[in-house]
Amino acid sequence: MANYVFGVDIGGTTVKLGLFDTDGNVLDKWEIPTRTANGGADILPDIARSIQDKMSEKGIDKAEVAGVGVGAPGPVDGDGVIHKAVNLGWGELNLKKELTALLGGMRVEGGNDANVAALGEMWKGGGQGHKDLVAVTLGTGVGGGIIINGRIMTGATGSGGEIGHIHVEDNETEACGCGNYGCLEEYASATGITRLANRKLKESDKDSVLRHGEVSAKTVFDAVKAGDELAVEIARQFGEYLGKGLAVIAGVVNPEIFVIGGGVSKAGEVLFDYIRPSFDKTVFHGCRDTEFALATLGNDAGIYGAAKMVLE
Amino acid sequence: MANYVFGVDIGGTTVKLGLFDTDGNVLDKWEIPTRTANGGADILPDIARSIQDKMSEKGIDKAEVAGVGVGAPGPVDGDGVIHKAVNLGWGELNLKKELTALLGGMRVEGGNDANVAALGEMWKGGGQGHKDLVAVTLGTGVGGGIIINGRIMTGATGSGGEIGHIHVEDNETEACGCGNYGCLEEYASATGITRLANRKLKESDKDSVLRHGEVSAKTVFDAVKAGDELAVEIARQFGEYLGKGLAVIAGVVNPEIFVIGGGVSKAGEVLFDYIRPSFDKTVFHGCRDTEFALATLGNDAGIYGAAKMVLE
Repeated sequence: MANYVFGVDIGGTTVKLGLFDTDGNVLDKWEIPTRTANGGADILPDIARSIQDKMSEKGIDKAEVAGVGVGAPGPVDGDGVIHKAVNLGWGELNLKKELTALLGGMRVEGGNDANVAALGEMWKGGGQGHKDLVAVTLGTGVGGGIIINGRIMTGATGSGGEIGHIHVEDNETEACGCGNYGCLEEYASATGITRLANRKLKESDKDSVLRHGEVSAKTVFDAVKAGDELAVEIARQFGEYLGKGLAVIAGVVNPEIFVIGGGVSKAGEVLFDYIRPSFDKTVFHGCRDTEFALATLGNDAGIYGAAKMVLE
Repeated sequence: MANYVFGVDIGGTTVKLGLFDTDGNVLDKWEIPTRTANGGADILPDIARSIQDKMSEKGIDKAEVAGVGVGAPGPVDGDGVIHKAVNLGWGELNLKKELTALLGGMRVEGGNDANVAALGEMWKGGGQGHKDLVAVTLGTGVGGGIIINGRIMTGATGSGGEIGHIHVEDNETEACGCGNYGCLEEYASATGITRLANRKLKESDKDSVLRHGEVSAKTVFDAVKAGDELAVEIARQFGEYLGKGLAVIAGVVNPEIFVIGGGVSKAGEVLFDYIRPSFDKTVFHGCRDTEFALATLGNDAGIYGAAKMVLE
């Protein structure tokens, strides 16, 4: 009987691992360094060894493990092949096949980290009880993961849910990191909010606490909560772009719920006050009831979602 | 052995029906009127009778029929319940259950007509050989259907793929039929192209064949092919909006291919010359290889897709 499942989340500096029971209770959680030298050739062997060590330590037999799910930072197709993970030094690699071989035939499932985190939030996080969900990660960039009928929507080339680069502004003059102009990420990421804030501080004569300290997504939303007028204007711009972008996504995918995570989401439900008006204004009427919630698993969403991939 | 399958496409004035073998060859095709009086109470009984008559006529036994697929003009959820079909007079109705009962227990599958047509184009039309596809119908309005991994993406409330109402213009002053401002449908439908053309004819002093005859999507693209400068400007506007809209959809869904159908698509591949530049300019790089094709089944896409639903 398979009572256990492992979830693995490969990041650029550390690999997070989790041992779960099949109900999704986490039994153990640890990290190992991501060794990116040699084109990342050590990463999968390190993971395999760490899992096998954990099984010995806990006295878990292979037959008791349903499998190992892995999230990785790159586009992963439906066959578990990752197509370039720049941060890890990987080119094309069959995650599923190679790790299965290293683990003596254990079942392995692989997915893109943002998609996997979305599945985690559906299973045990802010999206619990839903099966059509879009997870939006507002971090240094804007990432996303789309779950349709309880399963990750991978897309034809593993780029499904890459919502950070949907076009939301025709008149942008600064390029996004991706080379295009007017991507959602330029306005809704932590970096984007800082950029909006610096622009606004230049354009406006208004005083603001933001003129007297660090300017970041965090300080902007702290200032919003303190009633700072200029910060409220910045939050409105942020919300206008994000609300408009999510409205389009709702019209395409028609999810039950958006689950908002990432560093910016630490500002809390105040975000929805700024996202919702522009969402409501532009969304197709059939999608007007889409819910919004905050992600709750933080950095653990990846290991939860990875484990869940095996249990689908 | 089930050798046959029926596909039914319910429209506002006629119901199209098709008898197929399970390889998707159409064996017979016919129509009956859609009787919308009495809240559309006759529609399903009429369909059931027509199918039973056809089975008698051909000497087909119930056991030989895999089932009946039905496309209907309204949001249909994953359980085959249609939530309001204004054109038919229907409120909430369990298509699947009611038609199954009328057909003495035969298997019935139901879907939204645009989604079902998308499935038809995947099976036997412009999207053959693909399994992640977005069908775009440029008719009086703009409709859409999204196929993920060979299956219709219904969405939480049956509004998946309602791409006609995604927001693509912030500065629109005329309302869309849906009540919002700046929906894709306002620029990319036949009606939208006519509107763009009339605007352009007012703003510009340039002569054009469009000043000397009917203005419609057809006459605009005929004029484009004849090298009419003003018509080319109109086509550029159309293409800019549609290309931008499809780029966003590509970033969300990451399909292999867009299949473009509906009345406007009769203009042919020239459409892609106008859609592609703005698509390429704004699309996420991971989705840059998305293909474009014309729909090929015309008004029969619905009966093909309906039949295919049963064979999934």
